[in-house]
Amino acid sequence: MSKESQSTLFVLFGGMGDLSWRKLVPSLFSLFVEKKLPKSSVILIVGRTAEQPNSLSHLQEGVKNFSRYKKVVDEHWDQFATHLKFLNGDINQDDLYNELKEFSKELSKDGSSLQRIYYMATPPSSFGIIASKLGDAGLADDRKNDRLVIEKPIGYDLPSAKTLDKSIAKYFQEQQVFRIDHYLGKENVQNMLVFRFANPMFEPIWNRSYIKQVAITVSEQEGVGTRAGYYDHAGALKDMIQNHLMQLLCLVAMEPPMSLATDEIRNKKIDVLRAVRKINTGEIDQVAVRGQYEAYRQEPGVDPHSTTETYAALRLFIDNWRWQGVPFYLRTGKALSKRYSEINIQFCKVPHKIFPASAGADCQPSQLIINIQPNEGIILTVQAKKPGSEIALKTVNMNFRYQESFKKPSPEAYETLLVDILRGEQTLFMRVDQVEASWAILMPIIEYWQKHAPNDFPNYAQGSEGPAAAEELIESEGGAWPQCMAFDIE
Amino acid sequence: MSKESQSTLFVLFGGMGDLSWRKLVPSLFSLFVEKKLPKSSVILIVGRTAEQPNSLSHLQEGVKNFSRYKKVVDEHWDQFATHLKFLNGDINQDDLYNELKEFSKELSKDGSSLQRIYYMATPPSSFGIIASKLGDAGLADDRKNDRLVIEKPIGYDLPSAKTLDKSIAKYFQEQQVFRIDHYLGKENVQNMLVFRFANPMFEPIWNRSYIKQVAITVSEQEGVGTRAGYYDHAGALKDMIQNHLMQLLCLVAMEPPMSLATDEIRNKKIDVLRAVRKINTGEIDQVAVRGQYEAYRQEPGVDPHSTTETYAALRLFIDNWRWQGVPFYLRTGKALSKRYSEINIQFCKVPHKIFPASAGADCQPSQLIINIQPNEGIILTVQAKKPGSEIALKTVNMNFRYQESFKKPSPEAYETLLVDILRGEQTLFMRVDQVEASWAILMPIIEYWQKHAPNDFPNYAQGSEGPAAAEELIESEGGAWPQCMAFDIE
Repeated sequence: MSKESQSTLFVLFGGMGDLSWRKLVPSLFSLFVEKKLPKSSVILIVGRTAEQPNSLSHLQEGVKNFSRYKKVVDEHWDQFATHLKFLNGDINQDDLYNELKEFSKELSKDGSSLQRIYYMATPPSSFGIIASKLGDAGLADDRKNDRLVIEKPIGYDLPSAKTLDKSIAKYFQEQQVFRIDHYLGKENVQNMLVFRFANPMFEPIWNRSYIKQVAITVSEQEGVGTRAGYYDHAGALKDMIQNHLMQLLCLVAMEPPMSLATDEIRNKKIDVLRAVRKINTGEIDQVAVRGQYEAYRQEPGVDPHSTTETYAALRLFIDNWRWQGVPFYLRTGKALSKRYSEINIQFCKVPHKIFPASAGADCQPSQLIINIQPNEGIILTVQAKKPGSEIALKTVNMNFRYQESFKKPSPEAYETLLVDILRGEQTLFMRVDQVEASWAILMPIIEYWQKHAPNDFPNYAQGSEGPAAAEELIESEGGAWPQCMAFDIE
Repeated sequence: MSKESQSTLFVLFGGMGDLSWRKLVPSLFSLFVEKKLPKSSVILIVGRTAEQPNSLSHLQEGVKNFSRYKKVVDEHWDQFATHLKFLNGDINQDDLYNELKEFSKELSKDGSSLQRIYYMATPPSSFGIIASKLGDAGLADDRKNDRLVIEKPIGYDLPSAKTLDKSIAKYFQEQQVFRIDHYLGKENVQNMLVFRFANPMFEPIWNRSYIKQVAITVSEQEGVGTRAGYYDHAGALKDMIQNHLMQLLCLVAMEPPMSLATDEIRNKKIDVLRAVRKINTGEIDQVAVRGQYEAYRQEPGVDPHSTTETYAALRLFIDNWRWQGVPFYLRTGKALSKRYSEINIQFCKVPHKIFPASAGADCQPSQLIINIQPNEGIILTVQAKKPGSEIALKTVNMNFRYQESFKKPSPEAYETLLVDILRGEQTLFMRVDQVEASWAILMPIIEYWQKHAPNDFPNYAQGSEGPAAAEELIESEGGAWPQCMAFDIE
């Protein structure tokens, strides 16, 4: 029996919440349309008031809005809806777990094995409770078939992450835990491994001898929106850098793995995090920049005196042979001018110039840009000769566009990740040591920022490129933030 | 006084011939439109019957057909025509040169210096005579301002080339001699130096450790056409490989020059030719392939028993540290399926596969393709992950298209070269030692092919990919001819 055909109970805690409505149910619908959802699967929507007369139509509305297959909802919905069940219950009460147990018994009463996936689409404060109660109820005992899925934030600092990890580990083994970083499900993020290790010409120059700096940007155009309740206690560092940007860093910087085996990839990633140079408290103002956009304190749900950063940028070094001395810049922020995510690898200058100064006022160092969103692709900027009798250089792009090469849209990150969860394939998920290593790297900044309130907040305009100090951060090492190239490959 | 404004006498021997009509006068017209033709310049069309009532309109017709500026001929022709003069004369007779002398005296009678350019657009048999007679007439004495321009074929083998070179050298110093290989005027050929040496990421992998093979293809779709009289005594090896393909080989394989100084570039190119491994007579059937297309012997002007090759392919090795063991394949032919020229650099396989066999039936080794014609550009083929839940690889292209990046058409190769001749800039022209070194490389094949008549001619169909033996040539080393990519960047 292939994994796709195994009986599956997919329990969505917080199933009527926003994540579920926008991402999970639409993605499950996509899997259904693509026949990737196991035939005998039940998607159990759990919530205090999950079962309502309009619950089904509410979810349908989400699918109509957010699924890649929104055009075929009418055609497939009724069939898909047969997989949906609802269960009212309080995640803090044992009753719920007893009911779950009954429900699950019922599904496997013919003696067939059942895989149970517990997806915590709930506020992070419930993660520990749900895990414990599932464990106590004996719902986590099947090491192969019972799986727990959690999303960021995994803790709000290193100690709280460790506490959570411990309470999960009491009932779930690491192979049962799927920590989602949805960036890892994005096609061009997954492509990083292929691009780096299926092509022979990048690895020889993928090191300190040829690369001058690496900049990873996740730029958001929207403000805090409806997430203030959570965000105002987190901020950019914890919400974005600790997970998404650190994971991208790992993929850029990791050594070639021996194979694609889950733990082999994870080991190579943790090697990167372990090699990140410890940040000293005394240097934090030199290596990290925080910002807050102008209207942030007026947003609904935000403390009018909030010192939460909505922008963060930092410079890291990786202390190993490959990367010694190469600065890695990570930056992310809300209410910036554009929405895009990309990794920019800037090469060193040529060691010797044979072209006269007159040839290249336009000259910029070559860059390799990995576009993650909104347009997936890869750009290599190269110098080329301008047509004409004079030797004049111009920077031009060599482009690979996902959309152009593959013609069809890439799957949603969540679809990819859900398929992997259904298969028990953990490569694209964060192992516990990665999460903790990432927190450990950031702890000195977190503590310093907590102790030293910013005296210039708010310090950047909405729709700007972020605070001025971020420019100084990179210029102090002789670099510059790369220009956004995401729209060069539309 | 800038060089562009210097008084110039541009003498076109064979000025009413085909080359002049199709290429030279149209290119001179383009220069005129772009104000690159010196204002006080005279273009003297020389031929036995150059001056005819319809000579001017005949040339105008050529310009209307072949110039990049054909659309503005009416607007500019009258002005351009004031530069055109005609002189009837026999290149074998001293009279002509005396008249030339008078003409030239007249032009510089105000005491200003005159640059004199002698362009031999004549049959090759006249090159030596014209050079000698110019010299004897004292028309080559100004080492700075008197220039001789010749085109292929420069000799028909090494001894004849040496004889010609000697007879030219008797009167002209090397700095006065411009040996045209019009391939060197093509934009993307010139771009080779920029691409290789203005970008930091290619040079580190531009060697035997990372490159598996190099293939240079100049594929013609037309048959011999009206050139049979010359071609049937030459053939593909002498007509194409000795010059165009060898020059491309030099640009791909040369070491980084210290500067763009003419002799620096030429020295680095001759280094390549000198390092080409000597071909032994005993191995010629293993390293060189000749072909003749089916209808060739029926073409007008062709010997019905001709053994002239219309296709040639060879494998060369370059005996130096950079290229030891890397085969360089050169191939060219007439009456093939497509008209295109490109250089294909195939990289080695990755040293270790981390992707399962199931991931990449489609996998091909990465290639860098330098498209020379008809579409100018550069393609890097890379492996990327196909969108979807499985790890599946697909070869995709990263493209740079000249037309897309620069929006305007590139100048004709001849325009570029004429501008350089007017400036006395020799970098894009072949130095005498290059020509002779190239002949020296090919002599063993020339002699062997002369002695051993082909027993399978004709051996390829018109519109085909050439003779089957060419496949064996490359397969015997475990390679394969690259697919044409020229039309991937239209």
